[in-house]
Amino acid sequence: MSLSVGILGATGYTGGELVRLLVRHPQVRITHITSERFVGRSFSEVHPHLLGALDLQCEAVDPQRLAATCEVVFCALPHLASMQVVPSLLDGGCRVIDLSADFRLKSAIDFQSWYGTPHTAADWLAQAVYGLPELYRQEIMASRLVANPGCYPTSVLLALTPFLRQGLIQTEGIVIDSKSGTSGAGRSPTQELLFSEVDGGFRPYKVVGHRHIAEIEQELGRQAEKPLQVRFTPHLLPQSRGILTTCYVRPTLGQEERDWQQVLTQFYADEPFVRVLPLGRWPTTGQVRGSNYCELGVALDPRTGWLVVISAIDNLVKGAAGQAVQNLNLLLGIGESLGLEQMPLYP
Amino acid sequence: MSLSVGILGATGYTGGELVRLLVRHPQVRITHITSERFVGRSFSEVHPHLLGALDLQCEAVDPQRLAATCEVVFCALPHLASMQVVPSLLDGGCRVIDLSADFRLKSAIDFQSWYGTPHTAADWLAQAVYGLPELYRQEIMASRLVANPGCYPTSVLLALTPFLRQGLIQTEGIVIDSKSGTSGAGRSPTQELLFSEVDGGFRPYKVVGHRHIAEIEQELGRQAEKPLQVRFTPHLLPQSRGILTTCYVRPTLGQEERDWQQVLTQFYADEPFVRVLPLGRWPTTGQVRGSNYCELGVALDPRTGWLVVISAIDNLVKGAAGQAVQNLNLLLGIGESLGLEQMPLYP
Amino acid sequence: MSLSVGILGATGYTGGELVRLLVRHPQVRITHITSERFVGRSFSEVHPHLLGALDLQCEAVDPQRLAATCEVVFCALPHLASMQVVPSLLDGGCRVIDLSADFRLKSAIDFQSWYGTPHTAADWLAQAVYGLPELYRQEIMASRLVANPGCYPTSVLLALTPFLRQGLIQTEGIVIDSKSGTSGAGRSPTQELLFSEVDGGFRPYKVVGHRHIAEIEQELGRQAEKPLQVRFTPHLLPQSRGILTTCYVRPTLGQEERDWQQVLTQFYADEPFVRVLPLGRWPTTGQVRGSNYCELGVALDPRTGWLVVISAIDNLVKGAAGQAVQNLNLLLGIGESLGLEQMPLYP
Amino acid sequence: MSLSVGILGATGYTGGELVRLLVRHPQVRITHITSERFVGRSFSEVHPHLLGALDLQCEAVDPQRLAATCEVVFCALPHLASMQVVPSLLDGGCRVIDLSADFRLKSAIDFQSWYGTPHTAADWLAQAVYGLPELYRQEIMASRLVANPGCYPTSVLLALTPFLRQGLIQTEGIVIDSKSGTSGAGRSPTQELLFSEVDGGFRPYKVVGHRHIAEIEQELGRQAEKPLQVRFTPHLLPQSRGILTTCYVRPTLGQEERDWQQVLTQFYADEPFVRVLPLGRWPTTGQVRGSNYCELGVALDPRTGWLVVISAIDNLVKGAAGQAVQNLNLLLGIGESLGLEQMPLYP
Repeated sequence: MSLSVGILGATGYTGGELVRLLVRHPQVRITHITSERFVGRSFSEVHPHLLGALDLQCEAVDPQRLAATCEVVFCALPHLASMQVVPSLLDGGCRVIDLSADFRLKSAIDFQSWYGTPHTAADWLAQAVYGLPELYRQEIMASRLVANPGCYPTSVLLALTPFLRQGLIQTEGIVIDSKSGTSGAGRSPTQELLFSEVDGGFRPYKVVGHRHIAEIEQELGRQAEKPLQVRFTPHLLPQSRGILTTCYVRPTLGQEERDWQQVLTQFYADEPFVRVLPLGRWPTTGQVRGSNYCELGVALDPRTGWLVVISAIDNLVKGAAGQAVQNLNLLLGIGESLGLEQMPLYP
Repeated sequence: MSLSVGILGATGYTGGELVRLLVRHPQVRITHITSERFVGRSFSEVHPHLLGALDLQCEAVDPQRLAATCEVVFCALPHLASMQVVPSLLDGGCRVIDLSADFRLKSAIDFQSWYGTPHTAADWLAQAVYGLPELYRQEIMASRLVANPGCYPTSVLLALTPFLRQGLIQTEGIVIDSKSGTSGAGRSPTQELLFSEVDGGFRPYKVVGHRHIAEIEQELGRQAEKPLQVRFTPHLLPQSRGILTTCYVRPTLGQEERDWQQVLTQFYADEPFVRVLPLGRWPTTGQVRGSNYCELGVALDPRTGWLVVISAIDNLVKGAAGQAVQNLNLLLGIGESLGLEQMPLYP
Repeated sequence: MSLSVGILGATGYTGGELVRLLVRHPQVRITHITSERFVGRSFSEVHPHLLGALDLQCEAVDPQRLAATCEVVFCALPHLASMQVVPSLLDGGCRVIDLSADFRLKSAIDFQSWYGTPHTAADWLAQAVYGLPELYRQEIMASRLVANPGCYPTSVLLALTPFLRQGLIQTEGIVIDSKSGTSGAGRSPTQELLFSEVDGGFRPYKVVGHRHIAEIEQELGRQAEKPLQVRFTPHLLPQSRGILTTCYVRPTLGQEERDWQQVLTQFYADEPFVRVLPLGRWPTTGQVRGSNYCELGVALDPRTGWLVVISAIDNLVKGAAGQAVQNLNLLLGIGESLGLEQMPLYP
Repeated sequence: MSLSVGILGATGYTGGELVRLLVRHPQVRITHITSERFVGRSFSEVHPHLLGALDLQCEAVDPQRLAATCEVVFCALPHLASMQVVPSLLDGGCRVIDLSADFRLKSAIDFQSWYGTPHTAADWLAQAVYGLPELYRQEIMASRLVANPGCYPTSVLLALTPFLRQGLIQTEGIVIDSKSGTSGAGRSPTQELLFSEVDGGFRPYKVVGHRHIAEIEQELGRQAEKPLQVRFTPHLLPQSRGILTTCYVRPTLGQEERDWQQVLTQFYADEPFVRVLPLGRWPTTGQVRGSNYCELGVALDPRTGWLVVISAIDNLVKGAAGQAVQNLNLLLGIGESLGLEQMPLYP
């Protein structure tokens, strides 16, 4: 079996990562890649590290043609651009895994409030499935439109869902302190992302109102079965890859640290891509680099009563392209780990 | 005027930083440096970047001799080692600025509980002044033993004191998420501090029970005039210098964001080394590198009600050697900024 | 087919990298790993990034047992240690891929002169094959003892062999300026490899007499069919992985730049792991990270007449573990790329 | 005494560095800063690390006004832009230290050949002095137009001049392999300078024909008193600051390594900013960071006969702004080290 897939917006970091993973996927063949800026240029000019991996040229976006040829299309366009093209793809009959934010929120009103512009494909929101396989595996398998989660939300949701779903932590007062590598900010040149600016210059950004909050609250609220709000601060790390998220939550009951760790262990017992660490060991961005793993660790602070849950992912893999391939495997009904077996690269 | 000073433990990063600053101090002359491992070796062999700056050899520690010669001695020994030698220095008649943790806690019982061993110079604790000039300037000027604050505590205390002293934030539920460069962990070789391990490998450590908590809670409690506890998580950044601390606290009253910023501006109006940033701009470790500045920024999250206070310092300067020189200036009754005028190095 | 292999010295970076690659190799099973310091400890304690990948404990070295069980043994011990154990393994009947320097030199006298101590297994030197598949593929396939090349030598030999073998460059006056990431220096803690020391501190080291020169000159001399000497300077990069080598050589004849590039293209036309770049593009360590590729680029300086040949490899993959797996595949007569198909990780 | 100076193009890294140094210079006052893009914006918006250091707004360039007010003007504009404005400044009566490449070459023909466009102020070339104080101190003191050297040329000229001037090395076959931090490439955003691209991605660039070659050959030729050519390769380091240059030259006579080191020691005996290292120790970019020092080290390779001379500077200090301040001090006839006394920042 070799299924044809296309990638819209293949020239950013996420697009490159999709190709890195898919060219080694045993049951998939990339037949189309698109780019606005690089039409007609060969893929390896844009991603020289993939020289020899994919003999394709960048095309302009042509939804009809893509839909006619591809079983599944990955859409790695920026938000707002994505919702312009996804409906045509779906109408054309192919399935779509959208890596933008455009189909993650259930409510068009929420979308407008966080993104500052009306949603132009709101009819499709109800059909989109939030593509976090550990939470919505069945729904993903049955869907035609998967909204691949944001990188920060992935790191938060995998950390807190097991506790929220069982009512073990309070929905009030959740504090989330996240730190991301620079690749999460994309490949478009801006002064603040220059090496000289980032190196040695750890900093917070969007301290109030980062858009991923919408997604985090929607999904945590679904798990908790009631609305909730989180205090979320993103920071920019002087490293290319990786997100580490430190969550501070309040238990609703008294139990020992090892019991808290057990909650995670049991919840993720059968998950191929979640590694719950033994007590006393902690997730690091290095330990998951290049892989689809999410690492989780937990501690109970006996003095203050806070429960600390820490997660680490590679923002480009489990936080983007890897998770998208995992969703692809679910869509196709093939082995969920196909193409994702690579171990982390360390050091 | 040229006052004679000595440095115990001059071969670590803090010792090197003290020399870097003091050789350019207009009223001070370093006459003795000690080292356990490098006795007889020239200073510049141990700190090649200071070649030509200081023509001294490392001596063994001889408190009597130091006390006889030096007006002030900086003690940059590890904790536990410091309290073995500081009393002799004081008895010998010189004044001491101790950069270890040994004289920071007021209570010998607290010390034993956090450091796991009895304090052997407990009599001196009452006379030691906690050397944070912005809070204890008068006491420092009058003291003979200054306990130079820890790096993390400096970043926390400067961020939260203005609010706590005025009762503007709750003493319950404080969450402090700190990120430090590697130089804070010292120069002794360990596997986990190797470049290969740290690069690209952001991680938390001592998630429960970091010893700086003792100091933070003691001092915040003094400011608040009641005991309090903080949830504190340190992380290790892939950069050499800098601490950025993100504090989450609960206001006790409703006021606008600009009023919260005003609290900081007014509190630090006359401070030479605290830069309160305009709303919407944030401290970064890069903006203070190599300088004695502490940068502060604040945001009120209107959705969740949390007040976020963020600070940045260079852990080796305002977090260690620079603050020690500031304390020296206070002890000597000379200009507080002498030797500390250097602007941050950026990029 | 699933062949049993063992790894001696599995706890360093090279050992970790061997495991990373071999656990995804379709025809191999790791059955034994050894470690001097970590006997009895589980593998994932030493290499936490490989948690879940290999359920083995570190054993003490027992050559008889290993030889009895394993088809092939990878020896990732330090030099001098390797030659103590390799003969027993060979006598026991298994084949050995040795990643140390102990069997790379053909002459025991050379070994003693460069390593300062007599070779204790000199009888085996004649049987050892220098394991650079692009040069000695046939010999490797027929051998029982493969001496896996050093990282610097790999980067040099692949760059210069095509020219030397055809007499296109002078054997006099070759200058080689190499830059390596820190993982090449291993995982043992030393001050000079601390993050704080390396970050922002690019530097040369062993400016005269680096031991890899012995290997480089032996092998370049074999290609040129006459003895030669090279001027070689290694430098330490502030990054974990990657070697970039800039070679300066003198052409023996006048031809255009594109002809020089053709020499490389033709020589490596059928090689799966050598990527000769188009004129005007240059190898970078980022473009090969985590992969077994060697990238090559060439320029002719029309003003000075120097030919510049530049190569880039990942020192832990093509410079160590990846090349060892390539040699394993040759030894076993299976597909040379098995287990090595991963594309570079970028960024 | 407080002399008024202006800075044209103050918003790049070099401009920021000039301000960092000059605000601590005891005899100088910055009265004007200009910027094309940021007219009307306060300086600290553009360089937040200098908040509080300089209370000026960016002005448009007005040569007449600057010339009327300022004793000396630093011109930190890009090449080609500089020669548009420098003549007016000189005509207006002030002295100019130009940090661009526009006045470094003696010959307008050379300029056109390397920069691809005619020189529009060629009359001034003869009056410009190449501002390397260690070579041209007297000329600089008497000049009105100082052409501040390029960063790479500074690192090369200080390394090779002592040998060339005495005829101790051959003028043929010189190989120069340089490695620079990213700040040398400026602050304008481009994809290839993004953190994600540079981190872990050491690479060569402009392998043939880097424009600094013109300057290097002109100045080395003057020292050697005959024309010469060099093979020069620049590389981009994953660090913000620092240039390390490794030079390979052929001795014209046989003498011992210590004699070669003596040549450097004697030549630079009275220089405040050149540190010749003892044999066996090597320059590193870390050891000069933030300072105006140039470090030099030398080795004789007894096997191949090559002499290796290695230099390290901070590209923004001795390679740009620091050297400009040194030139300012010479122009003004004041202490050459004023404002430049800061020791390197390490780590």
